[in-house]
Amino acid sequence: MRGGAETEVLKKYKKEDPVSYTLGSFPTWELLKAAPERCERILYSPDYTGDAELKRAAEARGIPCFADRKSVERVSGKGNVYVVGVFRKGKNARLTSRCHAVLVNPSDMGNVGTILRTAAGLGGIDAALIAPCADLYDPRTVRASMGALFRVKTAVFESFEEYRSRYPDRALYPFMLEGSRLLGEIPKPEGDFSLVFGNEAAGLPPFFQKAGQSVRIPMSGDVDSYNLAVSAAIGLYSFLY
Amino acid sequence: MRGGAETEVLKKYKKEDPVSYTLGSFPTWELLKAAPERCERILYSPDYTGDAELKRAAEARGIPCFADRKSVERVSGKGNVYVVGVFRKGKNARLTSRCHAVLVNPSDMGNVGTILRTAAGLGGIDAALIAPCADLYDPRTVRASMGALFRVKTAVFESFEEYRSRYPDRALYPFMLEGSRLLGEIPKPEGDFSLVFGNEAAGLPPFFQKAGQSVRIPMSGDVDSYNLAVSAAIGLYSFLY
Repeated sequence: MRGGAETEVLKKYKKEDPVSYTLGSFPTWELLKAAPERCERILYSPDYTGDAELKRAAEARGIPCFADRKSVERVSGKGNVYVVGVFRKGKNARLTSRCHAVLVNPSDMGNVGTILRTAAGLGGIDAALIAPCADLYDPRTVRASMGALFRVKTAVFESFEEYRSRYPDRALYPFMLEGSRLLGEIPKPEGDFSLVFGNEAAGLPPFFQKAGQSVRIPMSGDVDSYNLAVSAAIGLYSFLY
Repeated sequence: MRGGAETEVLKKYKKEDPVSYTLGSFPTWELLKAAPERCERILYSPDYTGDAELKRAAEARGIPCFADRKSVERVSGKGNVYVVGVFRKGKNARLTSRCHAVLVNPSDMGNVGTILRTAAGLGGIDAALIAPCADLYDPRTVRASMGALFRVKTAVFESFEEYRSRYPDRALYPFMLEGSRLLGEIPKPEGDFSLVFGNEAAGLPPFFQKAGQSVRIPMSGDVDSYNLAVSAAIGLYSFLY
């Protein structure tokens, strides 16, 4: 261990912190590859076997990388994390992709992370979150995204109206149980478009019925709804392919 | 509280137990509605406000229902569960649907439960699990399924060969990163078919490349893979609609 700030033991993540953490090797490597300019340092447990390669990659990017078992244990809270990246949170990005995934009040960090991963995989998708919403930067969101948080352009808005006034010229497709057209019957849009998904428990409020072309995914009477990340995956894939 | 077996405090779930639990109101109601014959009893915390309706529904089906805070707390391990259903695990079902979702060595209970929920929602899908695999009956799987475990026909097999010898006449579509055809280019099968998905980390072994028509979901270089429940949702929706 070296001197200076590096010897401070990291604290558990809090929502108001200006930095957050990647927990584990996979998301930390994603951070190094996709957003090295936001990475402040990398810490690893002395038990970590991939330290040589990691150190080389970090040092090539001018990022300090050192052994600090205490910090790794403190911020991960779990036994099976050996590497932690410390990164500065991003500002709202300008969303320029043809397709936006707009998540209205998502409450589950796993769902938000999984949707970012789907968006990065399918490509050409930005993500807008409408507050109140799950913390985009919580290490659990980052982990569920498998690092896709560093690949997908994201922005958080105080209200749907704020999102809409910022991006007024896009076709809107709210996904609702009572959507007026079945997903498979909707022609692929020519221009830019936004697929809008509601909260896990409440869905979208009725207002959205008239905001654009509401969509329903075919659904039997055997369930009340689909998992949010599943709805988003089916919707995004269908509109893009 | 009444006498007899009902006064025994329930034990935390173990994989080898002949019974498992629904944790929370939603999956317990699903158990009551979809598989009352497997439900042995319902327990609720004295703080639960929906007890009158629940008791009526349980007693109409001849299922004992009583207050037992200690058991509810013991098996749920969390503060926000007020209702628990005790149910006998099912035997392997005969899988008769046109579409099978075949999960080879899935390790995450949340993924398995979410896929059951997707299958119940899309309809016409049975689920086959190839061991070793996440426990279909663990309360966490049941919860992620939102009770869909009681709606979808399921069977667990010791190996893929065992599944294949039991259901030899179906078209197989293994989903692989190196699948030889893109999902969108595959004509919808006429007869019965099975979509095969691999383990979260390892995917399907190369053997599956030659077992039927391997499929790949379009994927950018920005991710290594999709979440398993996301792959299954995209695949199942695309084949069925």
